[in-house]
Order: sequence, then structure tokens, then C-alpha cells
Amino acid sequence: MTKRLFDIDPWVIKTNKLAVADKRLQESITSIGNSYMGMRGNFEENYSGDTLKGLYLAGVWYPDKTRVGWWKNGYPEYFGKAINSPDFLSIPISVNGEDVDLAKIDYTNFALALDMHDGVLRRSFVGDFADGVQVKFEFARFMSNKTQELGLISVKATVLAGQAELVFQPLINSNVHNEDSNYDENFWELKNHAAVANNRYSLTVETKPNPFGTPRFTVTEQMQSLVSAPTEITREANVTEEAVAEKITVALATGQSVDLLKQVAVVTSRDVEESQQQAKATEILQAASQKPFAEHLADQDQVWQQRWAQSDVQIDGDPAAQQGIRFNILQLFMTYYGEDSRLNVGPKGFTGEKYGGATYWDTEAYIVPMYLAVTEPKVSRQLLEYRYRQLPGAFHNAQQQGLKGALYPMVTFDGIECHNEWEITFEEIHRNSAIAHAIYDYTDYTGDMTYVLDHGIEVLVAISRFWADRVHYSKHAQKYMIHGVTGPNEYENNVNNNWYTNQMAVWVLKYTLSILKQISTGKAESLAINTDEAAHWQDIIDNMYFPEDKELGIFLQQDGFLDKDIRPASSIDPKERPINQHWSWDKILRSPFIKQADVLQGIYFLNDQFTPEQKKRNFDFYEPLTVHESSLSACIHSILAAEIGEEEKAVNLYERTARLDLDNYNNDTDDGLHITSMSGGWLAIVQGFAGMRHHDGQLSFKLFCPKNWQGYSFKVNFRGRSLAVKVGHGQSEITLLAGDDLELTVNQQKVNLQPDQTQLINN
Amino acid sequence: MTKRLFDIDPWVIKTNKLAVADKRLQESITSIGNSYMGMRGNFEENYSGDTLKGLYLAGVWYPDKTRVGWWKNGYPEYFGKAINSPDFLSIPISVNGEDVDLAKIDYTNFALALDMHDGVLRRSFVGDFADGVQVKFEFARFMSNKTQELGLISVKATVLAGQAELVFQPLINSNVHNEDSNYDENFWELKNHAAVANNRYSLTVETKPNPFGTPRFTVTEQMQSLVSAPTEITREANVTEEAVAEKITVALATGQSVDLLKQVAVVTSRDVEESQQQAKATEILQAASQKPFAEHLADQDQVWQQRWAQSDVQIDGDPAAQQGIRFNILQLFMTYYGEDSRLNVGPKGFTGEKYGGATYWDTEAYIVPMYLAVTEPKVSRQLLEYRYRQLPGAFHNAQQQGLKGALYPMVTFDGIECHNEWEITFEEIHRNSAIAHAIYDYTDYTGDMTYVLDHGIEVLVAISRFWADRVHYSKHAQKYMIHGVTGPNEYENNVNNNWYTNQMAVWVLKYTLSILKQISTGKAESLAINTDEAAHWQDIIDNMYFPEDKELGIFLQQDGFLDKDIRPASSIDPKERPINQHWSWDKILRSPFIKQADVLQGIYFLNDQFTPEQKKRNFDFYEPLTVHESSLSACIHSILAAEIGEEEKAVNLYERTARLDLDNYNNDTDDGLHITSMSGGWLAIVQGFAGMRHHDGQLSFKLFCPKNWQGYSFKVNFRGRSLAVKVGHGQSEITLLAGDDLELTVNQQKVNLQPDQTQLINN
Repeated sequence: MTKRLFDIDPWVIKTNKLAVADKRLQESITSIGNSYMGMRGNFEENYSGDTLKGLYLAGVWYPDKTRVGWWKNGYPEYFGKAINSPDFLSIPISVNGEDVDLAKIDYTNFALALDMHDGVLRRSFVGDFADGVQVKFEFARFMSNKTQELGLISVKATVLAGQAELVFQPLINSNVHNEDSNYDENFWELKNHAAVANNRYSLTVETKPNPFGTPRFTVTEQMQSLVSAPTEITREANVTEEAVAEKITVALATGQSVDLLKQVAVVTSRDVEESQQQAKATEILQAASQKPFAEHLADQDQVWQQRWAQSDVQIDGDPAAQQGIRFNILQLFMTYYGEDSRLNVGPKGFTGEKYGGATYWDTEAYIVPMYLAVTEPKVSRQLLEYRYRQLPGAFHNAQQQGLKGALYPMVTFDGIECHNEWEITFEEIHRNSAIAHAIYDYTDYTGDMTYVLDHGIEVLVAISRFWADRVHYSKHAQKYMIHGVTGPNEYENNVNNNWYTNQMAVWVLKYTLSILKQISTGKAESLAINTDEAAHWQDIIDNMYFPEDKELGIFLQQDGFLDKDIRPASSIDPKERPINQHWSWDKILRSPFIKQADVLQGIYFLNDQFTPEQKKRNFDFYEPLTVHESSLSACIHSILAAEIGEEEKAVNLYERTARLDLDNYNNDTDDGLHITSMSGGWLAIVQGFAGMRHHDGQLSFKLFCPKNWQGYSFKVNFRGRSLAVKVGHGQSEITLLAGDDLELTVNQQKVNLQPDQTQLINN
Repeated sequence: MTKRLFDIDPWVIKTNKLAVADKRLQESITSIGNSYMGMRGNFEENYSGDTLKGLYLAGVWYPDKTRVGWWKNGYPEYFGKAINSPDFLSIPISVNGEDVDLAKIDYTNFALALDMHDGVLRRSFVGDFADGVQVKFEFARFMSNKTQELGLISVKATVLAGQAELVFQPLINSNVHNEDSNYDENFWELKNHAAVANNRYSLTVETKPNPFGTPRFTVTEQMQSLVSAPTEITREANVTEEAVAEKITVALATGQSVDLLKQVAVVTSRDVEESQQQAKATEILQAASQKPFAEHLADQDQVWQQRWAQSDVQIDGDPAAQQGIRFNILQLFMTYYGEDSRLNVGPKGFTGEKYGGATYWDTEAYIVPMYLAVTEPKVSRQLLEYRYRQLPGAFHNAQQQGLKGALYPMVTFDGIECHNEWEITFEEIHRNSAIAHAIYDYTDYTGDMTYVLDHGIEVLVAISRFWADRVHYSKHAQKYMIHGVTGPNEYENNVNNNWYTNQMAVWVLKYTLSILKQISTGKAESLAINTDEAAHWQDIIDNMYFPEDKELGIFLQQDGFLDKDIRPASSIDPKERPINQHWSWDKILRSPFIKQADVLQGIYFLNDQFTPEQKKRNFDFYEPLTVHESSLSACIHSILAAEIGEEEKAVNLYERTARLDLDNYNNDTDDGLHITSMSGGWLAIVQGFAGMRHHDGQLSFKLFCPKNWQGYSFKVNFRGRSLAVKVGHGQSEITLLAGDDLELTVNQQKVNLQPDQTQLINN
């Protein structure tokens, strides 16, 4: 069922084949971005075949109205969408009047390559035109990491045979739409567009008014094209009703080339008010025009060299796995690198519309643990600040449900919930605890207490107040309970006492009480927790109900779980997999099959609370029931399989996550990449195979090397240190590259690492 | 919170006040229909104030597309709507060029009256115009019960002062729309419209094409106006782009009158193919024109006299209750009287758009038991034939869920489910058993075995096969269970082992097995039930799990019910009632509060299976938790309260159902009347106060008279007999009006009724 469009290579995603039938998939995989903006791998020149055009600006969204037949009180009124922004990529090209369109012309020597060193996308082909004319085209593009508002698109055309009049029409087009818009709406109003001085063209749009009171965004895109050719270049403006374009004509003989560099500056009202946008864009373009393309490229490489130096994972003996992990790291860093605390990591990043650039709990559950290790602490801290900023929205969400405290949203752009299935919006509330857990994770991993004592405690108290109001006391059972929830396993809805939700709620209350003991008097006064409230929290901690089956020695996913028709996922007819594409929702809900880690997610998060035997019993019970139909599932299972010593299973599960998009494992990458799942491969290697854990500020590893690998190595930052870990069969090495000496536990032995020292470990 | 717009009167719904602020409510209550077509109480002349225009044709619908953000496999693709049909009511009128519009002109002597004897709506007022001109207008309209395709609208205008040129413009207008259409769509295409011979005008429309393969409908409406006046009458055609109209001008002096009778024939492709519709409509109008209005009225009265003779309920000492019960019977009979087995009883009948004319389980649960007693058996049988006809749709619905057998829909026009909330579509499957129970009800009440042996058994077997596939065997509990359902109490969703659903499923299997013993060999062969299948059904019957709490002596609404924070509905802040308008869905679902009878619905249906003590314990436990926010709730509780001897409670609950619409109890009658709840008042009187039951072909009563009534009487048909029951304080009478002698039980005493004999009963 998998589909692999690109060659295996350690540093390049490349192919010599245009995937006509899988163009969207190819576009998703060749998406690029710089965390400020990004785009799918669409073509510069016209392409009349199937394509999903997409160019997105971080934090620029629209509240698409959402109608359901049967409204419920408290429902959100809109579903936020990352909207397709004015197209600044396109450069229609003609050769002797013939439109260059790979769906129509003959061509040879096609090559497409995304360089993972620096996020530069290159493409080339030789087009055959009338009268034997042949022209070679070479494209290169990247979104600058040095100047975030800057996009660079270079085209070189070389006439290989005959005489060619080449016309390039670099443009910015406001007429774009979202495929998944509910009502075929356009989201933009064109405010002005014109040629400005010095071959510069500018276009300003504003998102349409909306009835929901969410902010409107203004965006100015400005372009200039630097052209060099051995012959005369004719340039003329072409401003149409909805676009600005320039028409650049050059006539070349065989052997001659033209180079065109389209530079685009994109400025939004998130940073620059509308009246200043033109000037700001001009300033960026003027600066950009001072440097040749090669210098821009060198700047780009420099940024990425620093990133890879902290984050690269090397795998010996498995080139496909090697490519997979680098692709995931590249795409994650192209989506988010912590520059702006108003932004987060969207499930599809800049690579597609579906789920758009909205924020989910994926960030705290799967992204933060990886970023903590491979970037500077400030990068992860920005993700925490994001939630702190959105606390007012979380208070609003709780209030919508008639509850106290704060409920972080399932899907959001600004903190306000914008998902409208009741079983998710109102019930998948475990997300709230993941927000709190990320605070713990950051604090314990980095040792930096300032966030939790200053901002984090406000978030923790607000979440704790939500849980204290959301539980109820069952007089019949004489226990606190949490009814009506959807756990991480979304294949059960509206269940009672989801073990994970109950566990995490209690954990949040405990952690909050522990932090409250450490805060300043001023902070304590502003939080106004009195002894009654704290006592009530303690009462909930002491008397929460956790479903379990003592005979089987397992925690129960929810109250009624054992009453189901329990049978392994292997008993499902393979023709009916994935079940979410074949079964009615009703059949899925009643089945014992689990979409993603649920009880096991709790054991993963609260890893130090459970015995090896508890971990093994629960893993052995739940993993066989799990269909892993969430891209977030396999990595957690791989990590736990490694922990309980099921190395083969750990490797199998790792393989489902490592090349999810490169091999189109879930048959849906045409929509866009699974950005938030991309940390899964890294987690499976580092927390799984290398067994990395941290608890009470102590770092530990438990190493093994998959059989079919010769070895692997990675680096992690930890509390001011940089460590290199190299794992082989039989023997491994850990080196303290930077920072003070560190005591850690490796394979259950204490190890004291000195600066620049390498410790050999037997495993 | 109630609002009463009309005066109390035993036979007329009348008022002298135009309810400008509550026009929609007034329109709902003055709706009329003849089960073939019907309309809200809109005005003939123009009205520029707030109004909800509505004119509906039975069985004419459109599949409105429905989009939800997150599609599930097996969801229906459309939501069927009863669509607003071309307006044939309107007759714009002007006086000396001034538009007669009660939102604009001065008027006096307003009167509006719906005569419950015959369903004729009358209205009159005196309009004041420029120069002291006064004109009295008198309107009367009804939808003929003699000729179902015929509507009659009469206007008389009398000049009381001055000289008046009166212009009437009777019209048929195709430009109509539904307020609740998802996308502001128009549903009709105008096919042709023209003046035809002899002052007749015709307009033909067809529903727009739809992508779902559901039938398109063609409708021809033809009108003629009979006008008489003492002066010259000028008539001219006025055919506009979207309407046909006639302009009728007459100049009158003080004291003179003009009479206009607009006769309309409505023919649809449900009965007459398009090419024949014009001719058929003409034929109807030609016949109609042979009779004066008075004769049409006499025909109408005759039909209704027969109906009332079988169905009238008299209440002495409570004129409001008297009016309420007659209004309910009138509106029910105007909606449905069994002429056409392709039709059913829509929750709003012809009185509004919301829920439209679609079919719900309300019919089997609440309508059939009443119709069995107050109409001929053939009327109820048509409702059963309706489901038999739709068996293919029910097979389709089960298949959509991946299940065997037949699943009758929650909402439908043609048997195919068209509701798209998963917790209803996929889960509120108890509806299937009500379909089967109506077969039992009909068969046992009428003694007519032909339906069940010929058609009904096919329905029963199909439903049984669904249940046998929908249950699962819990190895852990060693019981059959039904997980993932929504019971009649829609304030819980996706629960396990709803006691009602489990009980009714087992009851269906039992009843089906009992009928299978009585069918013909040919029928048995065609049904192909082998011994294994029957044995499996018996195994389910023998080993079904029913949740109960032995200590409390109650059946449990569902597995987790007792774990809730159980507290009485009286503890809810009155400002937060009804909770469905104040609480988030999440809060409602987690609460212990019950929307409508659930366990008690089962005790109502399977009344003979439970002891008086069981009934009392469950009533005492569940009724205090019930918020009665379904219009179908109070009557069932009233009946059971009466049965367990809580007479005061029975009367209180009756009062919530008896004048639900007349007093706008739920503050939503502006949308339309609660047609399918209208049997509730009757059921509360006859099954509640009079305790009527039937079981194994035996009829019984257990009579009491509410304290504030002097007495009440009603008639019932039963197995070829007609009985009159007159209940007083202390003493009651039962008379066998027609049919053979009958042994029945009254107040637990055997009574043998002889023809024309009245038995006195002490109560």
C-alpha cells in the first residue's frame, strides 16, 4: 500500500520522474518553508495537470463558518482555516509563443530534488519545442531563514538547440482559494496592486470581514526580478484585475542562457501595519538585491549547518531510515523554529489545507520532547509562551461549557476552540493535561524554573481549576470520577473514566500543588488559592477512581472496556484496513480496536510511576488491539516496546513512523505532510532504541541497536550540556561535547561524564 | 413562560387580536390541512410584517445537501426537507390604489377563528382607507376533505363607507423558499405557467435536479376565481416571470359587496404524470365550479362529523382542557387520516419547516396507539404498510452500518436515513423496535392477523436479523450486550446497555419467533429462517444482559447511570430551565437529567411484564430526574403516574401536554405545531385517567376522574365494536354502541358488555 516516489539518498529527496498521477503527493513532499511562510512543491511555470496549489503564511487564517444541522449550546461558531495566500511563486514561461507546461509539452531529463542540507528545492528539465528548439530549464527556490519575509526563486534557461524567444511572466496573483472551504468562498479582498518603482510590483490584500470578531489580516507581497542575459531584455508591466505581473522577453541563440531571480518580500499586519507594509517590503527587496543568489544561498546554508550540528541523527546501514529521519527533522524545522511565540506547529504546517496551520495537543505531546533535546531551550519555551498568551481563550472555552478554570482548545489559532464535534470539543479534554505536562517536561529537562514560576503556574492553576470542576463525586461509588470524555483513542467517544484522562488530571493537580509551594508571595496572592481549594484538590487526588482489572493486572481504558468483544487487530480482514476507511463509525466505536496509545500514552507520560511488570502487562494487552490509524500512534508504542525489551516489535513500529510521508504509508500525504508526527521517528530512536528518559533532573539512557542497523548516533542538549551518543552492537559511546560534567544513568549504571570525554558503554 | 393567544372556547380557536409580535405563533396555530396538503395561517392579502410563509404538499420533498466538517463512513449524504411549495393562497388586494396590508393600514374589528368542527379558517376586519372609505373583509378557507386536490379560499368585501375601487389579484407564485435551507437554495424550477381557458391560470414547477438520485417532483397548481358583484367586474390576466395572477377590479358604493371564491387544484407527479396534470387539474376545477361555496362547506362538514363521531373527547368543567384535546385531534386528522400509505405523520405536519414532513419513530410510539382507538383499523394499517413499503430503505440503512437485516431510519421520506448526527443515525437504534411494536399493537388491538402474517412478518424478521447482528457476546460478562446506543433519553449518547434498547430488542426477537409459528409454509420458505438462526435468537433472548440495581429495586437506564451525580431536576436553578437552552451539551450528557421517558418508556410499552411494585419503584426513581424537554415525555409519565395511583402527578403531567401549542409551552410553536406529540393529551386521558390497556386481545380500563374536572367521556373502537366511556367522580358508564358483546376488565372487575347496553362502574 505504500508508495515511494523519491530515491533513497542520505541528504537529498530526489527523483527523475514527474509523478503525473501522484502530483499532489510529490508536491507535499517537496514543500518548503521557513516557519514564517511556506509552500507546496508547485511549479513556477504553468501546469495544467492535477495539482493542489498552496502557499501559506504562518498565523494568517480565516474563520470559515461551519454549519451543522443540530447545533448544541457552547459549540464554536467557526472553524479556523490556514488560508491559501496570494501566489507569489508563479512565473509562466513561453518559448516561441508556446506555453511551457509539463502536462502538455515533450520534455526529457526531468530532475526534482529537495536538498535537506538547507531546504532548497531544485528542479530541471529539457523542453522540446516546435522546429527542434530545445531549452533547458533549471529552477531553485527557498524561503530565506536569514530574512524571514524573503522568498527567492531562481530560473535559468539555456537554449540547447535552435533560436528561442523566451517570455517570463513573474507574477503575484490574488485570485487563490482553498479547496476545503465550506462554501467555495474566497477569503481575500484585493486592496491595491500596482507596478512600483524600479521593476518592483506590489499587491496588498486583506482577509474579508467576518462576523465572529476575529482579526482581519492585511498582507503585502512585493516582487522584483533580477535578469541577466547576453542579449537585449525587454521588460513591461502587466497589471490585471487580480494580479501584478511583469513580462520579460529575451531572444537567445543556441548555447545562450538567461538567469532570472525573482525575489519576493511578504509582509503581514501581524508585524507591520498596513500603511507601513509597502515601505517595509521595499526595504527588504532593496537589501536583497545587493547580494547575488549564491550569497543568499550561503546565508541559508549557514543557518542550517548550525541546526544540523545540534540535531542530526546518523544511521549506519539503513539508508532509507537515514533519509527518513533527516526529512522529518528538515520539515519540522522548516515549519517551526521558535522565532515567534504567537505561532505553533500545525499538523500539516505549510504543506496543505487540511487541519491547516491550527494548533493541536500534538505540539505538547510529541513536539516539545524532541525540540527540548535538539534545539536551544528558548525554542521550546516559545511553545510554552504560546499557551500562556492564549490563556484568555482557554478561560473562554471552559466558560462555554459552564466550567471553571481554563480548557485549552483541541483546534485553535488564537486560543478559542474552533472544532465543532461535541465528542471532541466538549470531551477530548485530556488535551488540557498535555499542556501542563509540557511545562513539567520543559522545566525538568532544562532546569529552567523561570517559566513555571512566572507564567507556567498561571496555566497550571487554571487547568487544575478546570479539572476540579469537571470531576464529579459519585455518591454511589464514593469516588471522584470523570464522565463523558474521549480519550486519546478517538475510536471511543463519550466514555466514562478514561484511565488516561483520570490519571493525567490527578497528575496535574499534584504537580500544580508542588509548584505552588515554590512560587513567590506576590504570585501566590495573585493566584488566590485558599486552603479550601487546595484541600479540595488534594481530596480529588486521594479519592479519584481509576478503572483497572486486578485479575488481568491491567488498567482499563474506560469503565466498559472489558465488556467489549475483545479480539486482536490481527483478526480484522486485511481488506477492511484501515478500519476508518471501511467501517461505519458505529462499528468502530463498538469495536475493541484502538486508534492510538491511550492507557499506554499515560504510561509513556508518567513513565516513572509504573513498574516494569505493569508496563509489560498493559503493553501486551493493548498493543495487539491497536490499529495505529493515527500517525501519532506507532512512536509511543515503539518507545514502550523498547522499554520492555521487545526490540523487534520496537523496530517494526518505528518503521511505521520513520518514513510515513516519504512512503505515503497512510495513503493521505497528497493532502500534505504529517508535520506533528514527524518527531515520532526521532522519539522512537532516542527515547525508544536509546531509551532516553529524564526525571527529577536526572538523565538516563538504556541503549540498544536495531539488528539491521550497524549503528546510529545523535546529539542532545541537556541542562547546558551537549552530548553525543553513538550506539553500536555490543558497544556504545557517550561524549560530553560541551558544558559541565554530568552524572547520568546508562543501562542502569551511573556514569560520570567529564567535558570532552567519551565513555564507552557495553550494551 | 407560556403564552396564550386565543380565547378559550370548546369548538373554536379564536381571537380578536392580530398578534403582531407573535405572528408566527399565531400562524402555526391557525394552520390547516387535509393530509394531502396544508398551510400555515398566512394571510391572503399582502402582509409586510414578520411572517413565516409555508404551504406544503404531502410527500413532496427535496434532499438538501448537508455538510459536516468531519464525515464518518456510512453517513447519509442529504437531509430531506419538506419544501415550501408554490404559493396559491395569496390574493393581494387594494382599495382605491391603497395596498391592504395589516402591518400598514388602520383597521378595527379584527377576528380570526379556526372552527374545529370542520377545519375552516375564518378571518375578518374592517379597513380604514383614505377619504373615510371603510371596507369590511371576510375570509374563509379550507383544504377540501372531499376532493383532496382542492383548496377553497373565499373573500367577501363590503364597502361600509365611501366609494371604493377594489382590486383583487389572486395568484400562484413559484418564487418560494425555505428559511431553514442550508444554502439559501431555491428548490424549484418553473416549467411553465400561463393563463388557460375560462379565467383559469396554471403553473407547473419541478424540483431541481439533485445529485443523490432521489425522485424529482412535478407539481401543477391551477386556479380559477368565481366573482360576483352588483357592478361591472373587469378581469385581466397578469402573468409575470415567476407567477400567474389575475387582476379583478370592481367599483362599489357604500353597502355593496363583492364575493370572490378562489378555487385551486393541486396535482403532483406522486399521483399524476406531468403530461396529464393540466387536464386533471382542469377536471377538478370544472367539477368544483359546479357547486357554490356553501355546498363545498357542507361536504366538508359531513366528513368531519363522521370523524368527530368516533373520536371526540368531552371534558366537563375544564374548558381549556376541552379546547386543547379537540385542537390536538383536529390538527392530527388534518395531517393524517390514512388515505395514502406512502405518507406518514411529520413532527410538524404542514405547519412548519423544521423537522418538516419527515417520518420519525414518533408515529409508531405515540400516534398508532391513539389512531387504533379513534379511527377505523384501515387508517392505522396504512401507517404499517408505509414501513413495509420502505423495507428496502431499511435494509440499505443497516448495510450502511455494515449490519444484517433492516434498520428503520430516524428521519426519512423514503426509507433511507437522512439524519447525520452519528449518535442518532448510528445509535438511536431503539427506533427499530418501535416499528415492530406497532405491528403487535395493531394486531392485538384490532384482532386483524392479516397484516402481520402477510407483510408484518417480513418487517419483524428483518428487524430481528438486525438485532441479532447488532448485539455482541461479552466473553467477560458471559452475556449478550448492546453497546454504543442512544436511548429514548437523548440527553445521554453512546451509552452501553440502555435497558430500554436491550428490553425491546429481546421483545422483538420473542414476538417474531411467536409469529413465525403462525405463518404459511410459503411465507416460511421465502423468509428462509433455519433452525440455527432461530436458536441463535433464542440464545440472545435467554442470555441478554439487563442492567439493574437490586438494592434500589430499579432497572438501570444504562451501565454507568448510578455513577452519575444523581440529584433531582428540582435542584436545577429555574433560570437554567430548559437545560437544553442553557447548558452545554457536555454538561447535559454528564448530568443525571432525563429528556423523556426511557426506562419508563419500556415499562409503558411492555406494560404487562412488570409488577406494580417495579413500576412504582422505577417511576419514583426516574420521574424526579426527568426534565420533560421532549414534547413526547409528559404523556408517558402521566399514564404511568395514573397507573401507580399518583393521580395528582398524572394530572400535572397531563397539563404539560394538553395545550402544548395553544399555550406555547416550549416557547417554540412559532416554528410550527408539535403534531406527533398531539396524541399525548389523548393518551394521557384514555390510557392514563381511564387506564385503557389491551393485552392478548383483552381490553381493560382503570378509571379515575381528575379532581378539577366534573367528568369526561370518549369513544373507542375495539375489534369491531364502538364503546362510549363516560367517567365521573364515584361513578362511570361504559356503553357498547356497536358490535358484538364484549368481555372486558374495568377497575379490575370483569364486565360483560351487551350491545346498546350501558354498564355503571363504581370508581
